[in-house]
Amino acid sequence: MDIIDHVIQELAKLPGIGRKSAARLTYHLLALDNTRVNSLIQAIQNLKKYILYCSICGNYSETDPCGICRDPSRDQSVVCIIEQAKDIQTIESTHEYKGLYHVLGGVISPLHGIGPNDLRIPHLLNRLAPGSINEVIIATNPTVEGDTTCLYVSKLVKEKGINVSRIALGLPVGGDLEYADKLTLSQALKGRTRI
Amino acid sequence: MDIIDHVIQELAKLPGIGRKSAARLTYHLLALDNTRVNSLIQAIQNLKKYILYCSICGNYSETDPCGICRDPSRDQSVVCIIEQAKDIQTIESTHEYKGLYHVLGGVISPLHGIGPNDLRIPHLLNRLAPGSINEVIIATNPTVEGDTTCLYVSKLVKEKGINVSRIALGLPVGGDLEYADKLTLSQALKGRTRI
Repeated sequence: MDIIDHVIQELAKLPGIGRKSAARLTYHLLALDNTRVNSLIQAIQNLKKYILYCSICGNYSETDPCGICRDPSRDQSVVCIIEQAKDIQTIESTHEYKGLYHVLGGVISPLHGIGPNDLRIPHLLNRLAPGSINEVIIATNPTVEGDTTCLYVSKLVKEKGINVSRIALGLPVGGDLEYADKLTLSQALKGRTRI
Repeated sequence: MDIIDHVIQELAKLPGIGRKSAARLTYHLLALDNTRVNSLIQAIQNLKKYILYCSICGNYSETDPCGICRDPSRDQSVVCIIEQAKDIQTIESTHEYKGLYHVLGGVISPLHGIGPNDLRIPHLLNRLAPGSINEVIIATNPTVEGDTTCLYVSKLVKEKGINVSRIALGLPVGGDLEYADKLTLSQALKGRTRI
């Protein structure tokens, strides 16, 4: 059963897939006909072959620059800063944001030896030519590293005379005061908006 | 983003993987280096290329007959009947059973147009030569179809003068009477064992 175990092991390395799910997937693949398995393999191979990083914003793309950077209908004066390229899809799914993006490729984390120059921060500063960009929105995650990175980037952007904001921290929609943790609640109070 | 979406769609077809998990996996694959992705693809390709069914028991195997059928240390006089080849691994993981197996390849299900001859039942009857097999243990799932199949197979096996048993139905270990459903509890009462 070496071949089967090998597939189970490989699948179990993927995020969110434990040994039981991996075994279930493997037996599912065994039962599938070859065409469908080949179609999955082909899709993954294309992913690694044709997807590159946009040289402007760092987004995953089939073209360089990516579709968002090339889209003239988007607001070229606003840049939203995110940690990972996949965060773009999350924000795009809200249909609320029509500006550009800039992927940092991670967060500042001295514990892991990641400093500002390991991220796409110098690249961001080059991009922020005075006059062209009016606002920078920081959408790093509300974690210790995300907060540090936000603080660091906002300082540099402000020095260029550009407005900086951060997406709101507060109660999730549909949430309940009773179940909110203290930190979230204190951020929600601080960030209260006039109605 | 067509290529990325295509992978997400392909992965979302797999059992237990929703659209969100599929997206997460896809971005994980994008970030992985090529060697690791190729190693996963290679493993899956080997699965489809080298795994065949054992012509005796119907188990997945790299050889024919499979390792279990060829193993002289196993009890050749007991055959355990299961629905799917993957059930063999589940039973083997208990280390309690040392006999042979016979995979039916499904259950009798008139609703889905599956009759006894669509399963490996004729093959089982050929295998049960009088004298060589003393006991048949039926381990089909405790569902309506599993019960029907068990009844049907047990009748045919008994006609050959071979003992038939079914694995016990009852409370799962660590379970609680309070949370057991009525059917399970009634089966547990019927199947009580003297202590």
